[in-house]
Amino acid sequence: MILTVTPNPAVDVTYVVDRLTPGDVHRVERVLSRPGGKGVNVARVLHQLDEDVEAVGLGDASFGAGVEESGIRATFVDVLTTVRRTVVVSAGGETTSLWEPGSPAPEHARRALLDLVGSRLDAADIVVVSGSLPPGLDAGVPVAIADLAREAGVPAVLDLDGDALARAAEAGGAVLAPNRVEAMRVLGPLVLDDPAAAARQLSGRTRAPVVITLGEDGIVAADGAETWRTPAPELVTGNPTGAGDAVTAAVARGLVRGTAWPEILHDATALGAAAVRSPVAGEVDLPTYEALRTGARA
Amino acid sequence: MILTVTPNPAVDVTYVVDRLTPGDVHRVERVLSRPGGKGVNVARVLHQLDEDVEAVGLGDASFGAGVEESGIRATFVDVLTTVRRTVVVSAGGETTSLWEPGSPAPEHARRALLDLVGSRLDAADIVVVSGSLPPGLDAGVPVAIADLAREAGVPAVLDLDGDALARAAEAGGAVLAPNRVEAMRVLGPLVLDDPAAAARQLSGRTRAPVVITLGEDGIVAADGAETWRTPAPELVTGNPTGAGDAVTAAVARGLVRGTAWPEILHDATALGAAAVRSPVAGEVDLPTYEALRTGARA
Repeated sequence: MILTVTPNPAVDVTYVVDRLTPGDVHRVERVLSRPGGKGVNVARVLHQLDEDVEAVGLGDASFGAGVEESGIRATFVDVLTTVRRTVVVSAGGETTSLWEPGSPAPEHARRALLDLVGSRLDAADIVVVSGSLPPGLDAGVPVAIADLAREAGVPAVLDLDGDALARAAEAGGAVLAPNRVEAMRVLGPLVLDDPAAAARQLSGRTRAPVVITLGEDGIVAADGAETWRTPAPELVTGNPTGAGDAVTAAVARGLVRGTAWPEILHDATALGAAAVRSPVAGEVDLPTYEALRTGARA
Repeated sequence: MILTVTPNPAVDVTYVVDRLTPGDVHRVERVLSRPGGKGVNVARVLHQLDEDVEAVGLGDASFGAGVEESGIRATFVDVLTTVRRTVVVSAGGETTSLWEPGSPAPEHARRALLDLVGSRLDAADIVVVSGSLPPGLDAGVPVAIADLAREAGVPAVLDLDGDALARAAEAGGAVLAPNRVEAMRVLGPLVLDDPAAAARQLSGRTRAPVVITLGEDGIVAADGAETWRTPAPELVTGNPTGAGDAVTAAVARGLVRGTAWPEILHDATALGAAAVRSPVAGEVDLPTYEALRTGARA
């Protein structure tokens, strides 16, 4: 089973309007709402691929039940007053996002999250920790989760940002899967100049594989001195939100299966592109995935 | 006791951002949230004036408890899946509003709302019905509430829009308090050309007083053939949202006290201006109110 951890989940809300005009009053035509957050999106993609997956994290009284409505096993410990909303205003082809900061995590949230993850490790083949942390949760929590997993013989993949990524890079031992912008905060402009060298440098420091997603420039991975790079499939347009989570899903699945890195990257770029083709974050367009996965192999 | 009825309540959410740029991702700095909707705002103003007030309406499991946190007695019957949000993005001096349509009212919502209002009429001196209706609630419900009140000897003030206002204008018997735009849907351009004549015409049809708020042009009222008009106080700038609800609050209070119409309008313009001076809808700036109420009288 693949265990995804979402410390700072979100309810993804989409407001459909004709046009967004600052200063005006808009009557929203349609409201779409569903439980999200990066780890939940990773779980959604894996569930869509019929993988055995479970989603855990911090939440409020109702968040976990909302995730389970999608058929995904989920436990979100009720420590947050309310789960933040990420509002996307969709007007024609243009999307404008408003991300709430999230309600602060109380002091016992750290212990509650570690206990929850610990209780699932017996059944887990790999642990994925994704996304930001709520205010009040210290930046060392993802590293503590990875340490707990390692003690149980379970590898961890961390898709983090800011201080949490810096702490994980310092601690080492877990697979890191940042995007280009996140990686720059740890590695500086080398990520732009020579992404393979940047990934190699970070992998050398962490003594674990590093995967950096480069958007339209594909994906680069390094394990020690070895690096691999796959270009993104051409001509895929759509909604890039969630593409990184699809890549993380492919990486986690590949690592569980013992797939070689070139194959993992090939699979991950196909799945990332299939996520771009799906209008909803946390879902992939399966025909696109099949076409890219098999076609490019032929 | 003044009973306010809010068939389509809302959680008023304010997102504070530096600047709203369509197409961009915004991390919201601060989120303010509180139970609102026009009838709730009328109740808030009356509560601030130490009037005996109670707020009722349709809601979800938690909405009424949220209103009671402000010290206002409240019962919102739990028939809506969720209470809609009205999001105001505040960027410097500019506000951009996104109004969710609200979740549909089930078939039994009409009966539940009428029963709730009926159970409070013994203690009510006047009933105020304010705002829009949720999808699924028929446009005749405010009229049915006014009829129920009249049978119990309680007058009703209706601040409605669209079909509900048209139905109330047709049925007659209740005090109507639309704004200029709302009144135009029933009375056409006469509201712009000669607001006093428009109010008189509508009052003649409904055989009840009519109050039309004209924004910066003040307020006009008619009772049968008699009309009164009060200009708005000069030089009041601020947030006009909720000014109409303050006027409705003043009208309801004046009618309960048997105040003469010129006095009611004088009080209502002062309270409306005090609402404009308060940054939050549903609150009035009491020093402004006192200054305008007493000053203009002197």
